[in-house]
Amino acid sequence: MAQLKSRRIVLASRPIGAPRSDNFRLLEEDIPDPRGGEVLLKTLWLSLDPYMRGRMSDAKSYAEPIGIGDVMPGGTVSKVLASRNKALAVGDIVLGYTGWQDYAVSDDTGLRKVDPTLAPISTALGVLGMPGMTAYTGLLNIGKPKAGETVVVAAASGAVGSIVGQIAKLKGCRVIGIAGGAGKVRYLTEELGFDVGLDHRSPNLTEQLQAAAPNGIDIYFENVGGHVWDAVFPLLNNFARVPVCGLIAHYNDTGPGPGPDRLPGMMNTILYKRLTVQGFIVLDFDSQTDAFLREVARWVREGKIKHREDIVTGLERAPAALAGLLEGRNFGKLLVKVAES
Amino acid sequence: MAQLKSRRIVLASRPIGAPRSDNFRLLEEDIPDPRGGEVLLKTLWLSLDPYMRGRMSDAKSYAEPIGIGDVMPGGTVSKVLASRNKALAVGDIVLGYTGWQDYAVSDDTGLRKVDPTLAPISTALGVLGMPGMTAYTGLLNIGKPKAGETVVVAAASGAVGSIVGQIAKLKGCRVIGIAGGAGKVRYLTEELGFDVGLDHRSPNLTEQLQAAAPNGIDIYFENVGGHVWDAVFPLLNNFARVPVCGLIAHYNDTGPGPGPDRLPGMMNTILYKRLTVQGFIVLDFDSQTDAFLREVARWVREGKIKHREDIVTGLERAPAALAGLLEGRNFGKLLVKVAES
Repeated sequence: MAQLKSRRIVLASRPIGAPRSDNFRLLEEDIPDPRGGEVLLKTLWLSLDPYMRGRMSDAKSYAEPIGIGDVMPGGTVSKVLASRNKALAVGDIVLGYTGWQDYAVSDDTGLRKVDPTLAPISTALGVLGMPGMTAYTGLLNIGKPKAGETVVVAAASGAVGSIVGQIAKLKGCRVIGIAGGAGKVRYLTEELGFDVGLDHRSPNLTEQLQAAAPNGIDIYFENVGGHVWDAVFPLLNNFARVPVCGLIAHYNDTGPGPGPDRLPGMMNTILYKRLTVQGFIVLDFDSQTDAFLREVARWVREGKIKHREDIVTGLERAPAALAGLLEGRNFGKLLVKVAES
Repeated sequence: MAQLKSRRIVLASRPIGAPRSDNFRLLEEDIPDPRGGEVLLKTLWLSLDPYMRGRMSDAKSYAEPIGIGDVMPGGTVSKVLASRNKALAVGDIVLGYTGWQDYAVSDDTGLRKVDPTLAPISTALGVLGMPGMTAYTGLLNIGKPKAGETVVVAAASGAVGSIVGQIAKLKGCRVIGIAGGAGKVRYLTEELGFDVGLDHRSPNLTEQLQAAAPNGIDIYFENVGGHVWDAVFPLLNNFARVPVCGLIAHYNDTGPGPGPDRLPGMMNTILYKRLTVQGFIVLDFDSQTDAFLREVARWVREGKIKHREDIVTGLERAPAALAGLLEGRNFGKLLVKVAES
C-alpha cells in the first residue's frame, strides 16, 4: 500500500483554564504499513468527551496525563483498511481508542468489532458506548434508583445525562433534568420524557429546583459541580446517593476558589443526612459491559431511550469543539465526523 | 413511696462555640410515683458522648435539637426502684435514654434489660453499647475491611475509635491510630495492639502518617474532621472508604471557616480516586444489634477487645466533663457515675 499521510492533533502545551487553539498542534505524518498482528485503521468517528480536559493537564486524575507532543486521546470508530491480524478483516468496523488522527496502526488490544447492521456505528461512541455505559453503571450501581424516588441530573441533554434520566424514568423515578438554555430544557421534557427541565442559567435555579422536588432529592447524578451542586445539595434527602461521575464546571479551574471553606459543612451534611457520595469511572464496571449492551440496546430498539448526536465535520475542528463542550455549547453527544467511510 | 427529690440538668441556653457552665442549669424536682405501665428508675451511670453537643444546638442535625429547659439527653444504666410494668421488676438493671438526672419515671419504651452477670453494667454504655455498635456497624458495613488493608482511625483511644481499631486488627488490617498526647498514643500500640500510634498534636503529623502508611490508606474511619482529615485525605487509595461517624473537631464551630474553598478539590479527589464517603448513625443499623452483641461480647470475653472507661463521679460534674470530651480531655469511654447502686 502506498504510504498514507495522516493528520494527527497533538498536545502542544498544557492549558491554563479553558483550552485554546495554541494548546493543540496539527501535524501530518506518514503512517507505516501494519506489521504482523497489526491493522491499519481509518478513523470515521471521533468522540469528544469532558474527561479529555483532565488528560491535557498534569494535575492528579484517574488517568495519566498525556505528554506534550502526544496525540490527543479519544474513542474512535474506524474501518479496517489493511489487516495482518486474523481476528480482523479489511472492511470491519471497530471501536477503539486511537485518538485524534485520520489513520492509526494498532494491534487488536482494546479494539472491539462493531456490527453496523445493529445500529448506526456512531452509537458505539454514545448511547451504546462509553457515555451510555457511564450512565447505566453509575446510576444503577451507586444511585440504586427505586420507583417513586426523585432523581436530579445535570448536563441533562448531554451524552451521559440524557441516558441517566431516561433510565431513571424507566425505573419509575421522578426525573428533574438541568441543562443550559431553553432549547435543551424543552428537549428534556418534550423528547426525553423527563418530568421537569430546568435551566441552570436561571437566576433562581434554587427556588425552581425546590419547587420541582417537593419531596427532596434521593439521587443526584453529579457530572457538573459548580452552582448546580449548590442548588441540589441542600435538597438531598436522608440516605441520598450521589454518584460522582464528572465535574465539568471545574475542569478549567486554575486553583481552589475563594472562601468560605464549604468542606466542613459538606461533611457535616454527609453525616447527619447519611449521604453516600461515591466517585466512579466507567472502567470500574467493565464486567457489566454485556448486561449494559443487551439492556440498553433493547431500550433503544424499543424507542424507550432516545439519543441525540451533535456532529462536527472535520478533524481540524476538534479543538474548538472540545472547548465548546467544556462550556456546554454542544447539544447531545458530541462527535467529530472524521471521514465518510 | 415518699416523694423523691431528683436533680436534673437542663439546657439553659444554646452554646456558641464550646459549651460553658452557664449553658446548663441544675434543678431539683419532685419525682412522681410511677403510674400504670411505668417504672421508677434510679440512674447509676450516664454516658457522655460527642453527639450531645449537636443536640444542644439548633443547627441541622440527624436528631432534633432539644428545647431550652429540656433535660439534657443521654444514655443511662439505671436500677428499677418501683415498677408498675409486668416486664420489669424492682432491682432490674436497664439500659435507657433517660438523660442527665438522678431519677426518671418511664414506661418501658426504649428500655432494655441488662444482665449484670454477663459483664459490668457500665459496658452497656460503652463497648457493648452505642459506641461499640457504632464502631462495629460503621467499620463493617461501610468500611468493609479486607485483610492486608490499611485502616486509619482518629480519636483512637476513645469509646468508638478504640473498638474500630481493634476490630480492624481482628480482620487482618494494618491499623494506625491517631490520638492526642503521648499516654494515649502509647496505649494504642501497647494495650490495644494497633500497629502504629500517632499524636495529632505533632507538628509533622502529615509526614508521620505518610511514613506509617507506605501503601496508602484504604479505610479512614472519620470521627474528628479538622486537621486530621487534611493529613489523611491525600493518602487515601483508589476505592478507599470513608465511613463518616463524627466530626468532633467541628462541633464547636461557630460558622464556616475561611477559604480557600476545599469542596471542589475534595469532589475531584472523590471522583478520580473513586472514593466512597458515607455518613451513618448507629440507629441506621438497628437490625444488626443481635449480631453485634453476640460477636463483640465474645471478643471482649476472649480478651480480643479491650476497653477503657474514664469515670467522673457525680451528676453535677457532667457539664464540665462534656466540655472536656469535646476537647479530647477524656481517656477512654467517658461515663458519669451518678449513684453507687
